Amino acid sequence: MMETIIDTKTELRLANWASVTRRSPLQEILTSASRPGIISLALGMPDENLFPSAEFAQAAQRVLATDPRALQYGPHFQPLKAQVVELMKRRGVDCREEQVFLTAGAQQGMCLLARILLEPGSEVIAEELIYTGFQQVIEPFQPKVLTVPTSLETGMDVDAVEAHLKSGARPAFIYVISTGHNPLSVSLSRDKRVRLVELARRYGVPLIEDDAYGFLSYSGELEAPLRALDEQYVLYVGSFSKIVAPALRIGWLIVPEALIKPLSIVKESTDIDSTTFPQRVLSAYLETGTLAGHIKHLCYHYGLRRDTMLEALREHFPEGSRWTTPSSGMFIWLENDKVDAAELFNTALSKARVAFLPGFVFSVGPVRLKPNSIRLNFSYCSPENIREGIARLGRLIND
Amino acid sequence: MMETIIDTKTELRLANWASVTRRSPLQEILTSASRPGIISLALGMPDENLFPSAEFAQAAQRVLATDPRALQYGPHFQPLKAQVVELMKRRGVDCREEQVFLTAGAQQGMCLLARILLEPGSEVIAEELIYTGFQQVIEPFQPKVLTVPTSLETGMDVDAVEAHLKSGARPAFIYVISTGHNPLSVSLSRDKRVRLVELARRYGVPLIEDDAYGFLSYSGELEAPLRALDEQYVLYVGSFSKIVAPALRIGWLIVPEALIKPLSIVKESTDIDSTTFPQRVLSAYLETGTLAGHIKHLCYHYGLRRDTMLEALREHFPEGSRWTTPSSGMFIWLENDKVDAAELFNTALSKARVAFLPGFVFSVGPVRLKPNSIRLNFSYCSPENIREGIARLGRLIND
Repeated sequence: MMETIIDTKTELRLANWASVTRRSPLQEILTSASRPGIISLALGMPDENLFPSAEFAQAAQRVLATDPRALQYGPHFQPLKAQVVELMKRRGVDCREEQVFLTAGAQQGMCLLARILLEPGSEVIAEELIYTGFQQVIEPFQPKVLTVPTSLETGMDVDAVEAHLKSGARPAFIYVISTGHNPLSVSLSRDKRVRLVELARRYGVPLIEDDAYGFLSYSGELEAPLRALDEQYVLYVGSFSKIVAPALRIGWLIVPEALIKPLSIVKESTDIDSTTFPQRVLSAYLETGTLAGHIKHLCYHYGLRRDTMLEALREHFPEGSRWTTPSSGMFIWLENDKVDAAELFNTALSKARVAFLPGFVFSVGPVRLKPNSIRLNFSYCSPENIREGIARLGRLIND
Repeated sequence: MMETIIDTKTELRLANWASVTRRSPLQEILTSASRPGIISLALGMPDENLFPSAEFAQAAQRVLATDPRALQYGPHFQPLKAQVVELMKRRGVDCREEQVFLTAGAQQGMCLLARILLEPGSEVIAEELIYTGFQQVIEPFQPKVLTVPTSLETGMDVDAVEAHLKSGARPAFIYVISTGHNPLSVSLSRDKRVRLVELARRYGVPLIEDDAYGFLSYSGELEAPLRALDEQYVLYVGSFSKIVAPALRIGWLIVPEALIKPLSIVKESTDIDSTTFPQRVLSAYLETGTLAGHIKHLCYHYGLRRDTMLEALREHFPEGSRWTTPSSGMFIWLENDKVDAAELFNTALSKARVAFLPGFVFSVGPVRLKPNSIRLNFSYCSPENIREGIARLGRLIND
């Protein structure tokens, strides 16, 4: 259930790495958790009821009616880059259009960065538990991943990063989810941000900063991303999936200008690098000036859902349960030493009809870390379903 | 002008292959040839004036008004797979929905196939002159490319393919553009199709069949693709870019069912594999049943432009010029032993304000084959501009 080895029942020879690659548990669970009647706290999906669908439809109509080149091959839509520069100011980041590279979503952004930075045998520094999509990105290169622990209060263990670098490691990059960590929900403390950037500079190692959730804030102002501290060693990954809609498949990178050309070349070989239509529609939507209000609206609703979940956890979960109170992102991380997350996952799905993700699916490497932990999503379901889902899970654990 | 080595003026270390990769001349020329006032016979672009923009806009509106999940993450849109199966019948191919894999365009389809089939050190069989985008696809794997010549009358030299296989080569695949070859414009003869598939079966080597132009026919019925002859060894690559619009970024693969899972895994790691919005809009457009008529309309207009170009070549080009009369695709291939294509390219652009592609940019490997050849596109410009462009080029050559 949790992972599937590729079935190579074909007479064709596949590349070695392809025949050992695991399918992400996310896609498997997307299937089982999206059956009717399941309350899904499993995936990191935004709620489609909160999408700006009407405004987006109007923008699409405007573009198709007025721009004959909207459906043609074409270079990146320049006005959208200017809009990204403006948007980044809201995160406290100064950047220039020449540093913006538009991608088909944050996942592609990371994939392109991995392709220009990694080669077989490279090393990478990452936390012990991270977004599985990033693990898939680096898997074809089979890098040696040097892991570091994460504090649920202050984020990545920067001392451990320094220890790796001091002992001679020269990784191709350090991967960090600085705000609204997936799956651990923590945001990196100000102090650690500064130290991490100092290390990157001192050792000449770039940081890939995954800021997919960075515009969602539930407890006041968020820390500025690492990119606000350094423009040479921080490669910033942004996404419109969580603040507008995932199906646009539009994200962006902020990188040193010298990387734009290699990125273009790799992207061109991957998908011709021509996505004028969604880029133009998104740009037309952003032109209406309603995104700032829309993000506020999202933060209000997702914040309410976070609070609803926290309250339900206090009410329904047994003593010995510990959970985080995230200031950003879409997840709460919960640990209870009496819980076996794999067992609970199966029982919850079959008996309580509730889905979540066991924490260990985020483990880097073959060892299943944190078998006592679960990741709960609070963005996708309505407050009613969150209350009901947590109550059902609580009953299961108390049984 | 024609090629650019990556500028690695960054302090960051890039992967080895990335620092030697060439930018495709197509992207460079996209820039210079799209300056105002240039008659561009250079790129393989459809004419945006022939896009079904109004019908597409209506479809987009319908989807956004009625389908709240259109902008959400989601699996491939199943109805579109059924529509691809129907479409393939028009090419004489029987396939099942389970063999259809939707991609973000044909380029991504080939990239995914390369990733699951190639590893460093693999061999590949391909023609001496092929679509540069495919060369970019395989470049990161640095395979040994075993080349074979191409007849401008009957296509790929199948004897040469057989000779490679007989002498022990076991390539990961054979790449073939069977219909409307890019850049050579030839379509593979019936006899060669049969023999190529027999070779693939006998030696257990898959064929990647690039059929991006296969629905465009200007001289009656086209030969059925290789995929009509074999479903185990032919990996078919299709595209909506030339028959609907490129900016949708939707293509498809027809492959043995056992390859669907590895393809999903690789695609998921590349871009999350979630493109519900364009897939749903395209599907809604196809539901109107107007595509067959639209393709007829395209074939009529592109056929007219082909004829216009042929007539203008007869009128304006000097003796000693030889050119093809394509039954499909978007190009005419022209050779003249007095022509130096690189020189002509620069003069044409600066003096005559006409763009085309020198044949040698399609050479596999570092040697510039066919310095006396040019590729002329007839799909993008109006008949008037085609006549004018060819007249100007003819004057330059006659000078």
